[in-house]
Amino acid sequence: MTELWLIGIGTGSPGHVTLEGQQALREADLILIPRKGPGKDDLAHLRHAIISQAGATANVAEFDMPVRDESLPYQQRVAAWHDEIARRWKVAIERAAPQGPVALLVWGDPGLYDSTLRIAGRLSPAPKIRVLPGVTALQALTAAHAIPFNTVNGAVTVTTGRRLRDFGWPEGAETLVVMLDGECSFSTLGPEGLHIWWGAFLGMPEQLLDHGPLSEAGPRIQRTRAEARLQHGWIMDTYLLRRAP
Amino acid sequence: MTELWLIGIGTGSPGHVTLEGQQALREADLILIPRKGPGKDDLAHLRHAIISQAGATANVAEFDMPVRDESLPYQQRVAAWHDEIARRWKVAIERAAPQGPVALLVWGDPGLYDSTLRIAGRLSPAPKIRVLPGVTALQALTAAHAIPFNTVNGAVTVTTGRRLRDFGWPEGAETLVVMLDGECSFSTLGPEGLHIWWGAFLGMPEQLLDHGPLSEAGPRIQRTRAEARLQHGWIMDTYLLRRAP
Repeated sequence: MTELWLIGIGTGSPGHVTLEGQQALREADLILIPRKGPGKDDLAHLRHAIISQAGATANVAEFDMPVRDESLPYQQRVAAWHDEIARRWKVAIERAAPQGPVALLVWGDPGLYDSTLRIAGRLSPAPKIRVLPGVTALQALTAAHAIPFNTVNGAVTVTTGRRLRDFGWPEGAETLVVMLDGECSFSTLGPEGLHIWWGAFLGMPEQLLDHGPLSEAGPRIQRTRAEARLQHGWIMDTYLLRRAP
Repeated sequence: MTELWLIGIGTGSPGHVTLEGQQALREADLILIPRKGPGKDDLAHLRHAIISQAGATANVAEFDMPVRDESLPYQQRVAAWHDEIARRWKVAIERAAPQGPVALLVWGDPGLYDSTLRIAGRLSPAPKIRVLPGVTALQALTAAHAIPFNTVNGAVTVTTGRRLRDFGWPEGAETLVVMLDGECSFSTLGPEGLHIWWGAFLGMPEQLLDHGPLSEAGPRIQRTRAEARLQHGWIMDTYLLRRAP
């Protein structure tokens, strides 16, 4: 393999795929698809639909995603997991022996709270990396609510559920977007003066939206999220919090 | 008009257009195009190329963008400008008398440091707004450099050149992305321990990239930017700053 293409595919709507992403799928020689096991949010079917919609004729190789070793401390656990994913890519690629570029379909955008670039950095010899940007959950969320990401000349902090739980509301922030939050960490904040815009399964037929003052909408979102997760077996959600002006 | 569609078209590559964006262009009845006058970054030709690439058959109406009244204070100047743009949309739409949805092609994403949603909010009677997300300069920048937006479990602050000049480096921030900066405001920071990844004309054939320690890359970027702006008559750029770990 001499080239690895990371193609951002958006947040679940096949319509989020860009024209250059579709073209890259057609030009790739091998497409790698992760398999996360039954009942997980592997969304392999969506990746296959996107490949088919592009009219791509590349070989498709699936690989099993490893599970994280929960006994390790957080950063170490993530590093060991990335090592193992890189090893599995290598095995799958060597088995397929591609003659041209290898493509990976990356949820959202390959740069935003995604591990693919870090995993790719572990490959040796290092392939040439090409990144094709995709619509992220940030845009899918604000588009679904038809709200601006930022106030006029305002700043926005993008953070994780883990950081929000550990460090609270960032000093001086006006608008906060929270990613990778499996625990409704907004519930750890004092809700006074905060407004929330929440979305799950953004861009998908199952899309759920809610918004309102955090004091009222927060508990409602927690219930909706728990029910939807039970119903679908998984959930992916994100939200924006803004201080009332 | 009963529906207004805001279609994110990415940062200058026709390949950034999404499949749903292309479909919306085909379904629209009228497409509004801003005209900023000769030598400005109106990029009207790119918008026309995207419409043509989509095979759209809608009427296309151009309107002249007003100029901002620089004598007013910043927030007031922006508000007056948005009022005037909304008025010009209204005139152009009434003249075209569309029978179906009206579409606007929005640079980047309609939610991110873009005025279109705020201008649309001034229309009366209020149309139904549909927002189609697009690739932003954030993704185009990190993709072009093949770098992640965030560190593992890290936060990112997205801000403006004006804020960076007025308030300096935000308290506690590790990664900063700066938008709408016409003045290389990174030069107002102490460069120690900071790394910059910069890009101009992202996604376009004219794309320029540079990166390195801010102390070395900063002055080089200022020169490159000044030359490119002179050469092209306009420039659009953005950058990411990160504290060395």
